[in-house]
Amino acid sequence: MTVTSGETHPSKDHKMLYITQFVNGQRVQETYLVRKINVGKTKAGKDYWNVVLSDSTGTIDGKIWNPAEPSIGNFDELDYIAVSGDIQEYKGELQMIIHSASKVDPSMVDQADYMPSTKKNINRMFGEVLELVNSVTTPYFKELLLSFYDDPFLATEFQKHSAAKTVHHSFVGGLLEHTLSVTKLCDHFAQHYHNLNRDLLVTAALLHDAGKIFELNDFPANDYTDEGQLLGHIYIGAHLVENHCDKIEGFPVVRKNELIHCILAHHGELEFGSPKKPALAEAIALSFADNLDAKMETFFEAATSHAVDGNYYHWIGFNKFLDSNIRKTSPEGFEGMIKT
Amino acid sequence: MTVTSGETHPSKDHKMLYITQFVNGQRVQETYLVRKINVGKTKAGKDYWNVVLSDSTGTIDGKIWNPAEPSIGNFDELDYIAVSGDIQEYKGELQMIIHSASKVDPSMVDQADYMPSTKKNINRMFGEVLELVNSVTTPYFKELLLSFYDDPFLATEFQKHSAAKTVHHSFVGGLLEHTLSVTKLCDHFAQHYHNLNRDLLVTAALLHDAGKIFELNDFPANDYTDEGQLLGHIYIGAHLVENHCDKIEGFPVVRKNELIHCILAHHGELEFGSPKKPALAEAIALSFADNLDAKMETFFEAATSHAVDGNYYHWIGFNKFLDSNIRKTSPEGFEGMIKT
Amino acid sequence: MTVTSGETHPSKDHKMLYITQFVNGQRVQETYLVRKINVGKTKAGKDYWNVVLSDSTGTIDGKIWNPAEPSIGNFDELDYIAVSGDIQEYKGELQMIIHSASKVDPSMVDQADYMPSTKKNINRMFGEVLELVNSVTTPYFKELLLSFYDDPFLATEFQKHSAAKTVHHSFVGGLLEHTLSVTKLCDHFAQHYHNLNRDLLVTAALLHDAGKIFELNDFPANDYTDEGQLLGHIYIGAHLVENHCDKIEGFPVVRKNELIHCILAHHGELEFGSPKKPALAEAIALSFADNLDAKMETFFEAATSHAVDGNYYHWIGFNKFLDSNIRKTSPEGFEGMIKT
Amino acid sequence: MTVTSGETHPSKDHKMLYITQFVNGQRVQETYLVRKINVGKTKAGKDYWNVVLSDSTGTIDGKIWNPAEPSIGNFDELDYIAVSGDIQEYKGELQMIIHSASKVDPSMVDQADYMPSTKKNINRMFGEVLELVNSVTTPYFKELLLSFYDDPFLATEFQKHSAAKTVHHSFVGGLLEHTLSVTKLCDHFAQHYHNLNRDLLVTAALLHDAGKIFELNDFPANDYTDEGQLLGHIYIGAHLVENHCDKIEGFPVVRKNELIHCILAHHGELEFGSPKKPALAEAIALSFADNLDAKMETFFEAATSHAVDGNYYHWIGFNKFLDSNIRKTSPEGFEGMIKT
Amino acid sequence: MTVTSGETHPSKDHKMLYITQFVNGQRVQETYLVRKINVGKTKAGKDYWNVVLSDSTGTIDGKIWNPAEPSIGNFDELDYIAVSGDIQEYKGELQMIIHSASKVDPSMVDQADYMPSTKKNINRMFGEVLELVNSVTTPYFKELLLSFYDDPFLATEFQKHSAAKTVHHSFVGGLLEHTLSVTKLCDHFAQHYHNLNRDLLVTAALLHDAGKIFELNDFPANDYTDEGQLLGHIYIGAHLVENHCDKIEGFPVVRKNELIHCILAHHGELEFGSPKKPALAEAIALSFADNLDAKMETFFEAATSHAVDGNYYHWIGFNKFLDSNIRKTSPEGFEGMIKT
Amino acid sequence: MTVTSGETHPSKDHKMLYITQFVNGQRVQETYLVRKINVGKTKAGKDYWNVVLSDSTGTIDGKIWNPAEPSIGNFDELDYIAVSGDIQEYKGELQMIIHSASKVDPSMVDQADYMPSTKKNINRMFGEVLELVNSVTTPYFKELLLSFYDDPFLATEFQKHSAAKTVHHSFVGGLLEHTLSVTKLCDHFAQHYHNLNRDLLVTAALLHDAGKIFELNDFPANDYTDEGQLLGHIYIGAHLVENHCDKIEGFPVVRKNELIHCILAHHGELEFGSPKKPALAEAIALSFADNLDAKMETFFEAATSHAVDGNYYHWIGFNKFLDSNIRKTSPEGFEGMIKT
Repeated sequence: MTVTSGETHPSKDHKMLYITQFVNGQRVQETYLVRKINVGKTKAGKDYWNVVLSDSTGTIDGKIWNPAEPSIGNFDELDYIAVSGDIQEYKGELQMIIHSASKVDPSMVDQADYMPSTKKNINRMFGEVLELVNSVTTPYFKELLLSFYDDPFLATEFQKHSAAKTVHHSFVGGLLEHTLSVTKLCDHFAQHYHNLNRDLLVTAALLHDAGKIFELNDFPANDYTDEGQLLGHIYIGAHLVENHCDKIEGFPVVRKNELIHCILAHHGELEFGSPKKPALAEAIALSFADNLDAKMETFFEAATSHAVDGNYYHWIGFNKFLDSNIRKTSPEGFEGMIKT
Repeated sequence: MTVTSGETHPSKDHKMLYITQFVNGQRVQETYLVRKINVGKTKAGKDYWNVVLSDSTGTIDGKIWNPAEPSIGNFDELDYIAVSGDIQEYKGELQMIIHSASKVDPSMVDQADYMPSTKKNINRMFGEVLELVNSVTTPYFKELLLSFYDDPFLATEFQKHSAAKTVHHSFVGGLLEHTLSVTKLCDHFAQHYHNLNRDLLVTAALLHDAGKIFELNDFPANDYTDEGQLLGHIYIGAHLVENHCDKIEGFPVVRKNELIHCILAHHGELEFGSPKKPALAEAIALSFADNLDAKMETFFEAATSHAVDGNYYHWIGFNKFLDSNIRKTSPEGFEGMIKT
Repeated sequence: MTVTSGETHPSKDHKMLYITQFVNGQRVQETYLVRKINVGKTKAGKDYWNVVLSDSTGTIDGKIWNPAEPSIGNFDELDYIAVSGDIQEYKGELQMIIHSASKVDPSMVDQADYMPSTKKNINRMFGEVLELVNSVTTPYFKELLLSFYDDPFLATEFQKHSAAKTVHHSFVGGLLEHTLSVTKLCDHFAQHYHNLNRDLLVTAALLHDAGKIFELNDFPANDYTDEGQLLGHIYIGAHLVENHCDKIEGFPVVRKNELIHCILAHHGELEFGSPKKPALAEAIALSFADNLDAKMETFFEAATSHAVDGNYYHWIGFNKFLDSNIRKTSPEGFEGMIKT
Repeated sequence: MTVTSGETHPSKDHKMLYITQFVNGQRVQETYLVRKINVGKTKAGKDYWNVVLSDSTGTIDGKIWNPAEPSIGNFDELDYIAVSGDIQEYKGELQMIIHSASKVDPSMVDQADYMPSTKKNINRMFGEVLELVNSVTTPYFKELLLSFYDDPFLATEFQKHSAAKTVHHSFVGGLLEHTLSVTKLCDHFAQHYHNLNRDLLVTAALLHDAGKIFELNDFPANDYTDEGQLLGHIYIGAHLVENHCDKIEGFPVVRKNELIHCILAHHGELEFGSPKKPALAEAIALSFADNLDAKMETFFEAATSHAVDGNYYHWIGFNKFLDSNIRKTSPEGFEGMIKT
Repeated sequence: MTVTSGETHPSKDHKMLYITQFVNGQRVQETYLVRKINVGKTKAGKDYWNVVLSDSTGTIDGKIWNPAEPSIGNFDELDYIAVSGDIQEYKGELQMIIHSASKVDPSMVDQADYMPSTKKNINRMFGEVLELVNSVTTPYFKELLLSFYDDPFLATEFQKHSAAKTVHHSFVGGLLEHTLSVTKLCDHFAQHYHNLNRDLLVTAALLHDAGKIFELNDFPANDYTDEGQLLGHIYIGAHLVENHCDKIEGFPVVRKNELIHCILAHHGELEFGSPKKPALAEAIALSFADNLDAKMETFFEAATSHAVDGNYYHWIGFNKFLDSNIRKTSPEGFEGMIKT
Repeated sequence: MTVTSGETHPSKDHKMLYITQFVNGQRVQETYLVRKINVGKTKAGKDYWNVVLSDSTGTIDGKIWNPAEPSIGNFDELDYIAVSGDIQEYKGELQMIIHSASKVDPSMVDQADYMPSTKKNINRMFGEVLELVNSVTTPYFKELLLSFYDDPFLATEFQKHSAAKTVHHSFVGGLLEHTLSVTKLCDHFAQHYHNLNRDLLVTAALLHDAGKIFELNDFPANDYTDEGQLLGHIYIGAHLVENHCDKIEGFPVVRKNELIHCILAHHGELEFGSPKKPALAEAIALSFADNLDAKMETFFEAATSHAVDGNYYHWIGFNKFLDSNIRKTSPEGFEGMIKT
C-alpha cells in the first residue's frame, strides 16, 4: 500500500485492500502494481486497455474502456498505479472496471504489499548467515565469505532475491531462506559424518547459489536475465567465486578447485545442469542438502496453497517437480478421517 | 581366533594371525573359515582340494594335495578349520599349502575374527535405537516398535545383520549401523522442517529395512535368500510391518497406510524398486536420509580401502554406485600437495 | 432407470431415455446420477447450481437457476435424482434446464443404466472363472483360490469392479473380464510351452489383480482409494494373497514365494511399478498376458469409440497408452478404400 | 560323424564320439569341424597351429606342434578333418594333441553331428507350417505364402536357418521352429480376440523373419552377412515380401501396406530396430508373440544348459536378454527343497 | 490469385489480397483455398457453415449463415472459392462473413498464392541438383541418379514436395531445398575429410529423402498418406532406391548395400526411426548433414516468424524440436541493447 | 631417439628402432620412455622390476631381474632411459629382458619419437589458425583471439596439447588439429547459412577447447590434471575466456555472454557436460562441427589401426564412442569383394 495520504494514496495506517479480498460489486480505491498492459479493440473499433494488476496475494484483470480520458494518467508495465474502479464478475472470474488511474512513486509504497515475500524475518535470517560465516575457522574461507557478505551490492541482493522464477522459494528473501536452510543442513551433515570437511562444506553451501543474483532480475520482475538464460547460475556463481578467491592472498589452489567443484556439481547430475558429477564427499552432501530443501519447500508450498475447508489431508494431485502425486499426512487426532 | 588351547586351537591370549598379515615363506598355525571347496585333478590324475579360507580381513586359496591323508579331517563349506600350512607365492598371489586341517566348533572361536564387522559398538548403537524408540510419543507407534525390538529373534537378527551383500554396510552390524544413522538424520530433518510428523518419520526410519533380515542370510554366508531374491526387502518389510500393525489395537488404518507407504517408497524411484513414488513429506525425507547414508558410507568405505602411503587425497577412480570418479578432499595443511 | 412407478419414477417397462439420445429442444423426465454439483452466481448476483448428470452412456450439464424453489429437493453428489427439464444447445453443447429434481433411492434404479458396464455376461464369465479354479489340480492352490471365490465380499467385489479408473476395462465387470481373459491366455501359454507350471500360472493369473478391489472404489465413484494411492494394487494384492496362503495348512513356503513373486512382478518392469523383475518363466508369461490384454482392450475401445460413418479404417490418432498412432485394419472387401 | 569307412572315417554304424564325452588321457580317432586356425610360435621359435575343433556338443582346442609333418594334410577353416590325437588337461581345460589330420568331404559326414540343431522334427514342423498356409482363406495371402514356400531356395533355407547368431534359437531349424511357434501363438490370439484379422496376422507371422535367411549365413558359419549387418532382417524381409506382393495380381495396395507394416513393426519399439511402432492391432499381436517366444526360448535354453546334479530349481544368474536374475520354478514334490 | 477475369475472378494484373492484410471492417472480393468445412447450428436451430479459408500467408474463419442461398455455390474441402465477404473482429480474432461463394477451377489460380512456398527459385535449385548429379563420376551412381531425375513423375514431385508436414521445410519446394542443402554440405564434408567416398555420399544425400514423395501428399493437403504412416519415408525410399539399383546393369551388390545402408541410417539413431545405426563414415556424415540442416532451418523459421518491432534479438521461447529455449544473436551495432 | 652419440646414445643419423619393429630373439640398444615401474618378487623372494617402456608406436614390458646391479642406473617414471636388452616371447607377448639401463636427459632425445603425434605439420596448421584469426573483422573478437595466440604460454601449449586422453586426437598437436578442423567447418557453415554471425562462430570455434590446456597434462603424461577432473575443460575454458574479454576495452557485454554461451553449450546436451543447451544458432552450429569432427576422427583412427592384409573393408567391430558396429567402405574397384 502507499505510505502517503491523498484521495488515491491512502495514509500509512490505511489497511491495504488485497486482491484476494475483492468481492463482486465492490468499489475499490487502492494502489496496485501493473504487470502487463495490452491494447484491445472494441467491436466498435475503439482502443481499450487490458491491464493486469497485482499485489502480493495475486492478480486481477482491469479494463480501461477510455484510455484517452483525463482521469487515466500515463503509466507503464511494472509501475505502481493508484486506481479507482468497480469489481465485476465476467465468465466466472472477477475483473475491475477502472475509472481513474495515476502513477505512484515506488518510494511511496511498501513493496512488501506487492511482492510475495518470505514468511520469515529477513534480518534475523541474515544474522544467522553471518553467525555461520563467523563459525568458519579456516582463514581463507572466512575471508572469502566476508568478501561477499561485506560487499554492499552482493549482501543487499542476496537478501532481496528470490531463489527461482516459479518452482520453489520464488519470493523476496527466497534466496536467503534457501541458502540458510541448505547451510544448516550441511552443518548438521558435518556433525553426523565426521569425515566431512566442515569449513569447505559450509562455505560451499553459503555460496552455492550466488550466481542467482545475476540469473534472475530483482522483484517485481523476477524473471530470467539475458545473462542468466545464456550462462546459468551454476557457471555465473562458480566464475564469480573463483575470481573472489584469486584476490585472496594464500588461498590454496587445490582448495579453490575443491570449492569451485562443489558449486559446479551441486545439482548432482549432468542432466540437471551440473557440468561435473560430485567427486568429493562434500559435493555429494551439498547436492543432497540443496535437493532436499528444494523438494521439502516445494511440497510445503503446494500443501499450503491447497489447504481448504479445514480438511488437512486430502490428495493434492500431481506435482511436476516432485514427479509424484502428493498428499498431506493426516494430522494428529484426525487419523480416522480422510477425503480422497 | 579360537578361544581354547591346544596345538591347533590357540589359547585366548594367543593373538590372531590375520590373512592380510601373511608373507611368502611363512609357516602358519591358525583357525580360519572355509568359504568354498572345489575338487581338482593333478596332471597325474589325482584328486586335490582347493579350499578358500577367510577371516575378517580377507581370503586366501589353500591347496590340499592329499585329501585322503589322516592329517586332513572332515569339514564342509562354512565350517571353521584349524590348519597347519606354508605360505607360497604362485603367479603373483600368495597361497597356502595345507598340511593338516581339523574342524573347530563355532562356539570355540570369536566370530568377530572371521567376519567383517562394524567398527562401532553394537551394544551402544542398539542402546541408541532403544532411546529413539522411547522418544516416540504416539502410543501405537511405540507399541509397534516394541513389538519388533522386544521380539528376541528380530532384535538379535537386527543387530547381527549386514545391510547388503556387497555395496555398503556389508558387515556384521551393518543393518543396525545404517538404520541408526538414517533414523538420526530423520530425527534432525523433523527438527529442521517443523511440518514433518516426527513420530511417523522416526518409526518409518527404524523399520524401513526390516525386510533385510529375511532378504539376506546371516553371516558368514551373507547372501541373498531365495525369498529375498523373489520378493525383495521392500515388500517383505512392508508385509511384516503391516501384519504387526494389525495386531495392535487401535492402530488407525490411515496411519498404517501412511507408514507402509513410507516403507514401500523409501527407494525414492520406481526404477530403484519402490512400487510407489514418495507421496508424503515424510516419505520424501526418509528416501533422502536412506540415499544419503548409503552414498556417504559407500564413499568413505571406498576412500578407506584405497588409502595408501600417507597420500590422503588422490583420485580413487570410478565408483559404480556413486556413478562418478571420486577423490578424497585434501586434508588440512596439505592443500598444496596433490597426486593426480 | 428407476424400477418403480410414479410421476418421476418410470415403471419397469418404461424404456430408459439415455443422455446420448437427447436432442435440442427435447423435454425430459427421467432419473440420472449426480456426478458433481457446483454453485455459481448469475450476473445479478444470485446463486445457481450447475449439476453434472450421468448415465451409462455419458454426461450432461444441468442448470438449476432457482435452487431455492420447492420443486428442487435436497440431493448430493452420487445421488440419483428424478428430473424434469428442457434440453438446449449452448455454445455447441447440449445442456439441460432443470425445472424439478427429487432424490431417488438407489434400490429403485437399475444401476446398470447408470454405469458403463461390460458388454459380456457377468454370470457366465464368473462361471468360466470357477471352471478354471476347478481345473487346478494342486490341492493347496485350489484351496487358496476357493478361499477367495467362496468369500462373499471378495467374490462380489471381484464381479462388480472395474480394472482401472480410466485407461482400459474401466467399467462394471472390467476386473472380472480382464482377469478371465488373462487367465485364459495363460492357460493357452501353459499348453504351448510345456515347461510352464500350469497350476502356478493359472493361480497367479486369477489373483494377479486382486488388489484392485481395494485400490479402486466401487462404481459409481470408481476412483482411487486413499489406500490405493498410497500402496497400489500390486502390494495390496500380494499382501492379501500371502496372508491367505498362511492360513492354508501345508502350503509350501517355496511355492508361496513363487506365487507372490508372480503377483509382484506382473507389470514386468520396475518403472511400471513392479518391485521385482520377473525371475520365473511363469512370471514372464503372466506379465505378457496382462500386458497383451491391456493393449488389445485399449486398442479396441479406442477403435470402437472412434467408429464413424461406416468408414471402418481411418487413422484414430495418437494413443498415449499404446505410445503410437493407431489405425483400424481395413475390413474384408474394403481394401481399396482408405480415408487418411 | 563320417558316413564312410576307413581308418579315420568311421563306418556308418560307428557311434560318433562327441567332444563333451572326452576325458583326460583318452586317445581319439574321429572327424570334427574346424572352426578356427591360428598360427603360434613355440619358445624355440618354431611355428605351431592352434586349431579349434567343434561338433554339435561343443568345441575343443587342438595343438599341432609340427604342421609340416606329412601326417598333417591341408585344410582350412570350416573344413571337416579326420584327426587322431590325445586328450590332455592343461590349466584346467582339456585340449587335444593332434598327431594326424586329413580333410574329409562334407558329403561324407552327417552334418547334424556337427551343428547344434533343433530338438524337434524339421519335416513335421514344416508340415505344420504348410497346414497353416493352407488354413489361410484370403486368396492373395495364400498365393503370397505359396510363392515363398514353393520356392525351392527359400523353402530350403527357411528349414535350415537358425533364428539368431547367439541369443535364442541359434541352431539348425531355429528359424523354422521360432516361426512356427510365433504363428501358432498368433493363430490363438486371433481366436481369443475376434476383432483381429486372422489371415493378415497369420501371414505376417509366417513371413515376419523371412529376412533372416539373408541376414545370417548358413551353418556352420551362422554369422552375420555383410548385407545383414548393413541392412538388417527387418528391412530385408519387408523389401522381399513387398516385391513378392507386387508380382501377385490383384493384391490390394492397402492390404500390402498393412502386411509390410506388420513386418516393419514386429520388434515393437523403435529402439529395438523397428522403423515404425505397431499401429494395427495385428502388428501389436505379432510383436507380442515374437517377443514372448524369444523370451520363453531364452529362458528354457538358459535353464537347460544350467541343469546340474538333479537340483532343478537353483538360481541361474543374471540373463542379459531377459534383463533379470532368473530361477527355475521348483518341480512338483520338491517344494520344500531349495538351493539358493 | 485467380488468373482470369470476371466479377469474382480478378484479372491477371489484379494484386492478390492476402489474408494477413485483412483489417476489421474491410470488404473482401478474392479467391481462397477451402481448408475445412464444418456445419454448425444457430441458437434458432438453423444450419450454418464454418469455412476455414487459407492462402500462402495464413488462414481465417469464414461464416456462411445461409448456406442454402443461391449466392452460395457447391464446393468442398481443398477447393478454391471466389468469395465476397466482410471482415469482422470476434473475440479478438478476425473472421469473414461470407455473402457469396463460387468454386474456381484450380487451373485458373496461381497456386503459389495459396501455399507456403520456398523463398528460393525452384528452377535454379533443381539446376544445382542436376549439376551435382553430373559431378558424380562413378557410372552406376550417375545412372541411378538419372533414373530418378529423368523420371517425369519423380522429378516433378521432387520439386513440388514439402519435406515435412509441420516441423521444418513444410512448404512447396521444401524437399528440393532441403535435399540440395544437405547434398552441398555432404559435398563439402567430402572435401574436408578425404577418406570419405564422395560419390557414395553425394548419391546417398541426393536420394536420402526420396521416400517423402510417397509419405506426404502433395500440397495443398500436405498430410501423411496411409502408406506414409504405415511404412515411413525411410523404408519407402530405401525400397524404391534398391529396386532402381536392381535395374542398372553392373551395379555392384556391395555398393548397393552401402548406399541403402546410408538411407536406412540417415536419422542417426534407432529411436529416431532408423532401423540401423550408421556403420559407414559416409552414413555418419549424411546423418550429420541431415540433422544440421533440419536444426538450422527450424531455428531460422522460428526466428523469422517471431520477428517483431525491429527488436532483433529477444528470446523466442522453447522450441520443441531443438529441445531448448532459443534466442536470436544480437545484430552488429546493437550489442548494447537487449530485451529479455 | 637420442640426438647425441655414445654407446647407448645413438648419433643423430642413427635410425630409431621402434617398439613395433621388435622380433623375438632380437638384441636391442636404444632409448625409450619409462611409463610405469612396478616392483615384484621372484619365487625365491627377491625383488625384481617390471618396467613399461614406450615410444610413439607402442609399449612393451621390460624385466630387470637384478635391479641392484651396477649396470642399472637410477630412473623414475616418465624418464627416458637408454637400455640394452633381449626380446623374448612370453605367453604370446614380446617382452624385453633388460641388462643395462641409464637415464637420458630429455633434451637429448627427439620427443617426437616417443609420443604419438599428429601426422600433419604443426607449423602449417598453426599458420592456418592465424589466418583464420586475421579473417575475423570484428575488432574486439580479433583482439580477444590475439590475446590468446600472442600469449607465449597459451600459444605453445595450444600447439603441443592433445585433445583427449584416449578417445580421439590423443596425440601431440591433437588440440591444434581438432580446433583447426572445427573452425574450418564452422567457417563453411557460416558461408552455407547466411544468417550465422561468422565472427562470433569462428571466434567461439577457435576458443571452444581452450580449457583443455589445463584439463590435461602435457605429453608424455597426457593425463587428467586434478583441476581438469574437478572442473572440466568446459568451465575452465569459459572462465578463462571471460576473464580475457573483461580485459578488452569496449567488449560488449551482450556479445561476451553470447561467446561464453557458445563455449558452455558446445557439447550440445546437458548429459554430455554442457551446463546449457545451445540457444543461439552459432552455438548449435559449433556443437555440430565439434561432434562431427570427433566422430569422423574416431572413425578414421579406428579404421587405420585395424587395417590388415590389404583387406580394406572388413567390419571393424563395435566402437563405443560411435555406439555402433562400424565398417570401412569398400574401395573403388573392390566392390565385389568383401570379408565379413
